Amino acid sequence: MPELRKDIVTREWIILAKERAKRPSDFSKADREEIPKTDPATCPFCPGNEHMTPPELLAYRRKGTERNGPGWWVRVIPNKFAALSYEGTLEHKEVGIYDVMSGVGAHEVVVEMPEHDKQLFQADKKQIEEVIWAYRDRYMALREDPRIKYILIFKNYGVTAGSSIAHSHSQIVGTPVIPQKIMSKIRGVDQYREYVEKCVYCDVIDWELQDGERVVSENESFVTIAPFASRSPFHLLILPKEHCSCFARMDRITIADFASILKDTLVRLDKCLNNPPYNYTLITAPVESDQLENFHWHLEIIPRLTTPAGFEIGTSIYINVTPPEEAARYLREISVDEGECKTG
Amino acid sequence: MPELRKDIVTREWIILAKERAKRPSDFSKADREEIPKTDPATCPFCPGNEHMTPPELLAYRRKGTERNGPGWWVRVIPNKFAALSYEGTLEHKEVGIYDVMSGVGAHEVVVEMPEHDKQLFQADKKQIEEVIWAYRDRYMALREDPRIKYILIFKNYGVTAGSSIAHSHSQIVGTPVIPQKIMSKIRGVDQYREYVEKCVYCDVIDWELQDGERVVSENESFVTIAPFASRSPFHLLILPKEHCSCFARMDRITIADFASILKDTLVRLDKCLNNPPYNYTLITAPVESDQLENFHWHLEIIPRLTTPAGFEIGTSIYINVTPPEEAARYLREISVDEGECKTG
Repeated sequence: MPELRKDIVTREWIILAKERAKRPSDFSKADREEIPKTDPATCPFCPGNEHMTPPELLAYRRKGTERNGPGWWVRVIPNKFAALSYEGTLEHKEVGIYDVMSGVGAHEVVVEMPEHDKQLFQADKKQIEEVIWAYRDRYMALREDPRIKYILIFKNYGVTAGSSIAHSHSQIVGTPVIPQKIMSKIRGVDQYREYVEKCVYCDVIDWELQDGERVVSENESFVTIAPFASRSPFHLLILPKEHCSCFARMDRITIADFASILKDTLVRLDKCLNNPPYNYTLITAPVESDQLENFHWHLEIIPRLTTPAGFEIGTSIYINVTPPEEAARYLREISVDEGECKTG
Repeated sequence: MPELRKDIVTREWIILAKERAKRPSDFSKADREEIPKTDPATCPFCPGNEHMTPPELLAYRRKGTERNGPGWWVRVIPNKFAALSYEGTLEHKEVGIYDVMSGVGAHEVVVEMPEHDKQLFQADKKQIEEVIWAYRDRYMALREDPRIKYILIFKNYGVTAGSSIAHSHSQIVGTPVIPQKIMSKIRGVDQYREYVEKCVYCDVIDWELQDGERVVSENESFVTIAPFASRSPFHLLILPKEHCSCFARMDRITIADFASILKDTLVRLDKCLNNPPYNYTLITAPVESDQLENFHWHLEIIPRLTTPAGFEIGTSIYINVTPPEEAARYLREISVDEGECKTG
């Protein structure tokens, strides 16, 4: 079983995925090069190859088709190379002066569509809605697990962004701790509210919509902005205009609007930056504090255009070479065919 | 002038280096590929090409040779593409709801040797000592600048680690704020001391030397360990055995021992992992708290063997596939010719 180990100085956890243990030769130069595209015939995420994955946790499929066979349009499976284990109890122990926790939780793959050669930004809006419903359904299922304290939904697109499989997919991880990065956002939201008596994200939305310079596009329910303190070029946030701590509370219309702005934003990035690698992360309140109304959920998109190096690693101060005002302007100027979202 | 912008939620600063502003086409796929090695004839760090860099800040050179000409064995120059500016006053201002600070500070390059094709691990111990003296001399000079609150010394080695010039070099950045990452280490050290009444790094050294499993090598003054909560494969720490908050207080003998263990550690990494890309960062107390004895300086080495992706970006929980116990064992088993350091 994997284990979590706590940094004795910073109190940040790491996950030691021993099952995937690698020897020095596994890190040879060849392994650091681009991973070849998988062939649909041997792609574990293609219809017909369902036997190559663990049994499905969820599939939206045509009536009359069988579990773990073709006929689905979105499919969720356990990650075969899971960083955390579904089995086992949550146990803490001390190893000398150090803290260890059993690596229990969840690690799932959302196969976003049956097509092997299509990417998320190329899918139609309806299909993206279905992906978001799958995120929501799995989130609702995982939050029932008392061992899970936080659920992160994310996507790695392109080798530079850490993806090893070409077939379009995202991932869901349920962790037995609330990550420090999330805690620092929660603390920031709480501190701002203490001083200003408002939600910081609501204030950002008001300010940005009024100012306009960093707005990429918007629709009825959402706005995409390049944040004022963008950590890297074309760093973006998609924010729900209405204050809401948990993404899973979106209703049908809001989900459609979310799919619409996500597609709009990804299409702009693709056209502007020529199919860039990116990571997105859906940041929502921790499971147990969904009732706490303070948090404001959002989706963060980080194109991987520059390499964080020693300075960023040592200080966590990021050096960004593209002002967000310019990034937003370039993205606004892209023309999007199905434009349901308006710019600036 | 560059500017610092504060994230309104997490209160982390970013540096916006507007002078290096990039357009979308600058991030084309070609730019994301490997950067070709520079030719010594056009290498700005080679002897004879001193006119290609800004005037030197420091050079250790043979008697009778002229400033900004050949004859040096270590040379420090301002970074031509500086992230922070030497000129200007430190000013805070508010832009709407956001905080901005003028991007003043320092950004320097330490050219570690005259040879173009040699790397730090291949230099002899004496040369590495000279590099450390240069770090120390520039640190002592920069700490006189009242605008500078923190000084980070770091090295990016290899394209994957963010290096764009092949000639062996490291960098020094003086920032007008104490970075949050450093603050979180200082807080961790203080909190541990409050509970246990000891230095956490001293306790780690005692524990690791006694346990032995994660020790790579040691000499009279230093020990290299794979930390218990290693964030990535072959993550290493070089720790001074004697408690000391500031690296610049090392005496002549300790500097020689530091050069010796740094060379030993880099040679082991090179042999074990076939010339891996890496970043190292020298983490020392903030300038103004050098008198505060709580901190324990150290050098952190992160080989860039895996790609942090959405999960790490969203949570700051790193997934590591190589147990530090195994990394340390592999590194101990490497035979090092000039072995002045002993293993476990």
